[in-house]
Amino acid sequence: MMNIQMRKGWACCLISVALLSCTASDGVKPEAVKSKNVIMIIGDGMGPQQVGLLLSYARQAPHSVLADRTTALDRMMERGRLGISLTYTADTLVTDSAASATQLATGKFAGAEMLGLDKDGNPQENIIEKARRLGKATGLVSDTRITHATPAAFAAHQTHRSQENSIPEDLLATGADVMLSGGLSYWLPEQANDKNSALHQQLAQMTGNSIEIKSSRKDAKNLLTAAQQQGYALAFNKVQLQQATGKTLGLFADSGMANGIVETQNRKDAGHVQPTLKEMSMQALEILSRNEQGFFLMIESGQIDWAAHRNDTGLLLHEMLRFNDTLNAVLDWAENRQDTLIIVTADHETGGFGFSYSGVDIPKPHSLPGAAFAGGALFQPNFNFGDPSVLDKIYAQQLSYHDIFSQFDRLPKDRQTPLKLTELVNRYTEFKITEAQAVKILATEANPLYRAGHTSLGEKTVPKMEVNGEFFVYQKENRENLLAQAVAASQQVVWATGTHTSTPVFVFVTGREQVTQPFAKILHHTRLGQLAIDALH
Amino acid sequence: MMNIQMRKGWACCLISVALLSCTASDGVKPEAVKSKNVIMIIGDGMGPQQVGLLLSYARQAPHSVLADRTTALDRMMERGRLGISLTYTADTLVTDSAASATQLATGKFAGAEMLGLDKDGNPQENIIEKARRLGKATGLVSDTRITHATPAAFAAHQTHRSQENSIPEDLLATGADVMLSGGLSYWLPEQANDKNSALHQQLAQMTGNSIEIKSSRKDAKNLLTAAQQQGYALAFNKVQLQQATGKTLGLFADSGMANGIVETQNRKDAGHVQPTLKEMSMQALEILSRNEQGFFLMIESGQIDWAAHRNDTGLLLHEMLRFNDTLNAVLDWAENRQDTLIIVTADHETGGFGFSYSGVDIPKPHSLPGAAFAGGALFQPNFNFGDPSVLDKIYAQQLSYHDIFSQFDRLPKDRQTPLKLTELVNRYTEFKITEAQAVKILATEANPLYRAGHTSLGEKTVPKMEVNGEFFVYQKENRENLLAQAVAASQQVVWATGTHTSTPVFVFVTGREQVTQPFAKILHHTRLGQLAIDALH
Repeated sequence: MMNIQMRKGWACCLISVALLSCTASDGVKPEAVKSKNVIMIIGDGMGPQQVGLLLSYARQAPHSVLADRTTALDRMMERGRLGISLTYTADTLVTDSAASATQLATGKFAGAEMLGLDKDGNPQENIIEKARRLGKATGLVSDTRITHATPAAFAAHQTHRSQENSIPEDLLATGADVMLSGGLSYWLPEQANDKNSALHQQLAQMTGNSIEIKSSRKDAKNLLTAAQQQGYALAFNKVQLQQATGKTLGLFADSGMANGIVETQNRKDAGHVQPTLKEMSMQALEILSRNEQGFFLMIESGQIDWAAHRNDTGLLLHEMLRFNDTLNAVLDWAENRQDTLIIVTADHETGGFGFSYSGVDIPKPHSLPGAAFAGGALFQPNFNFGDPSVLDKIYAQQLSYHDIFSQFDRLPKDRQTPLKLTELVNRYTEFKITEAQAVKILATEANPLYRAGHTSLGEKTVPKMEVNGEFFVYQKENRENLLAQAVAASQQVVWATGTHTSTPVFVFVTGREQVTQPFAKILHHTRLGQLAIDALH
Repeated sequence: MMNIQMRKGWACCLISVALLSCTASDGVKPEAVKSKNVIMIIGDGMGPQQVGLLLSYARQAPHSVLADRTTALDRMMERGRLGISLTYTADTLVTDSAASATQLATGKFAGAEMLGLDKDGNPQENIIEKARRLGKATGLVSDTRITHATPAAFAAHQTHRSQENSIPEDLLATGADVMLSGGLSYWLPEQANDKNSALHQQLAQMTGNSIEIKSSRKDAKNLLTAAQQQGYALAFNKVQLQQATGKTLGLFADSGMANGIVETQNRKDAGHVQPTLKEMSMQALEILSRNEQGFFLMIESGQIDWAAHRNDTGLLLHEMLRFNDTLNAVLDWAENRQDTLIIVTADHETGGFGFSYSGVDIPKPHSLPGAAFAGGALFQPNFNFGDPSVLDKIYAQQLSYHDIFSQFDRLPKDRQTPLKLTELVNRYTEFKITEAQAVKILATEANPLYRAGHTSLGEKTVPKMEVNGEFFVYQKENRENLLAQAVAASQQVVWATGTHTSTPVFVFVTGREQVTQPFAKILHHTRLGQLAIDALH
């Protein structure tokens, strides 16, 4: 076998590298194509467009908070590989988060809005169930709520994602060792809503008063008690989380967790109560890595999607920074490990985001020192291609659009005027609007998409969309999308839709070379999911 | 050096593969990180979104013309690697094609709309000039025109892309061996416009009457004669092209070449006069590969961008199929070659395209056979996630939007009615519009972006854009963008802008592993360009 004609110089050098890389690993066996640990990180709604916002900010913002202008994704690419994945469902062009995560979790095609079922509606084993069969520890972490589409698809089997009152029981049945997110209200009996009840008091005490106690249930089931009976320790704030050592159910908000702008502020405040996505992820790794058989962990940076549905660019940037912060910590944890496969992908793109060039505020012509301009020609592009300083202004947004409108809606009705909205927007963001623009943002019309009883299309009067209203289906939030349109030219930002797009998503993978190689193709999420499942051993 | 502890089984196996791959190549020398030939294929405006349209069509269209549902990009990924590249200019968020291609061609940051200069305006050596210094053959192929931004950036040095009457002389000075595209009018003296002149007759005869003879110049320069004096053979149609064996200037249209829908029709007609992008590329490879020192060839699939600026989804699909057809042929040519680096990328994304889910035509609930639905639950997604059959209807478009409006504009003024537009759109496309929609498409307003003398913002009255008009700067074409908005819901398609976006683009590379590896990072186009330049030896 070693009887080979050797050539001088590089040839020897390359061969020795090949040999060293083989022997440097922990013995190359058939298991070389498997991984002890698999970490799947899903940026919900994080298409190439959202990745682009993070990269533009990192590279071009005059005062980028990423001092070395490097992102966690750069680190992934330095050590790993890149693939592309298509996200469509069994019979549609575009997917929702539930079907997409189901396809990732089971490797099977699903129907839209299903959880843990194949396209015919048959429950399928998910990667958490498989990992448990193999004796591994398992975990789910999300900055949304644990009953929301993405984490739920990794543990539940339901005909529709909206069945959030059934999902806690599915989560307990599947039994991931660590479940950390928001969504406490789906675990509490409806009696908890009675503020004077002993139960309410007891829950307030148990949670250290860190979460508003309310129930979204219509029954008397106390799923927290059920969880405790199954051996879960409960955690409701950062301090409790950091004490957790074993099986842990952490519910850190009544519904969704803090948004990205709030989390940025929390990260600067050591005394913050609600853990960050990074802190949840690190504690999950701390607990799960105690299992000598290895683990599977899914981490969702879920509010990228929520920001993008609202076309809220400032919030989106902070969501991408939360994702980046979390991934950096995971990569630090995995540094020099050969036994861990890390997959970073998205379930779909949301919003059709982009910086774009325009015909307003075109920079004035000016001279340039170069030889080609020596004859007196001026540098004079025909359009405004966008000043990178807008990136700093986008970062400087202090409240999400949603929180701005929440403030607005809490005003007495007679003070909910366009002028007041102008004041709020101009106080909390760097992109000022006029009263005339506020009038358009607050304009309403008879709902052109009205469907009686529909979860989001059931209002008779809705914000008035001028164009493509068919694609702005979360109608209660459409004032936020209209605000985004009002500042589009000054932000240099365009958005295409209030829902998702079909844009293929990136698949970043690091781990042992033989494991990562099959991911570096043009995949579909069913194939990507199957590769992740197969990588477990 | 060989004194290494060997382990059994897989380790030996892998090492022997490593050794074999080293010795199987043509001797591993320092040149292992170089390539004899470099082919750079640029999809102009081909962001991940446009790649997604091709992939969705290939995988999901019920009657896809790609019988095996595989694209040329799948083939790239099977044998190569993937990177990501950012495209911004020296001081802007978004780029145009000239600056982007300059950055690719020179490896240096450029200012917007410049050709072959660095950001200060100094001419920089481009990859064609470098390749010629190394004794290699060089070529430029584009389905736009040879003086247009992308091919021009690989050969010219001009302060602005609009200087198309100066570019032919730059092209001849740089002296690429093969230049194949449209744009004859920039090479002819203005006297050629006199239809009765001997020159006009002579040119008509020389071109085999295959191109309309007209000049865009304001002088008496005949650059065709200059080209002949420099040793170029001239070609004006497919037959002449296929006879070319050496230095060749092929100009196959007075301005831009046939659009993608026309090319699809041409591909079915063996007697077509104008060569396809694939035919130009194959003839270029035939000629250039005769140089024993190797070659550099740039191929632009340039009308992807033009379709996307107009938000013309049907045309975009045919442009992507033209790109796919061309890349497949290049990959066939390069099959089993280790000496050729192929780079496929884009200069930027155009239009912010995506399929998206909506609140209209929501499918009716229906039963499913699966166990989870056995209790009588119905499958009932809340939204319309898009029926893949729209892909076939998009493919079936018979005329570009531009050609539809050209027909419309050729009608007598009193027949240019909304009803007539409705008839034309409904004759040539599968997505029908109403007369009321045609009224909106034809509505005009005083130009809100008016700039006297501006190349595209200089009209006093323009089509009326309801939203984001700042980003629809090619105002003469905006009826096409309005038509796209009219059919958005039925096509299940959203577009964000009439210009470009900042979305990072894919970088597909195949070739010798040591050569392709550095491309599989998060790059900027200056770095990507420099890697391509460095790969030449």
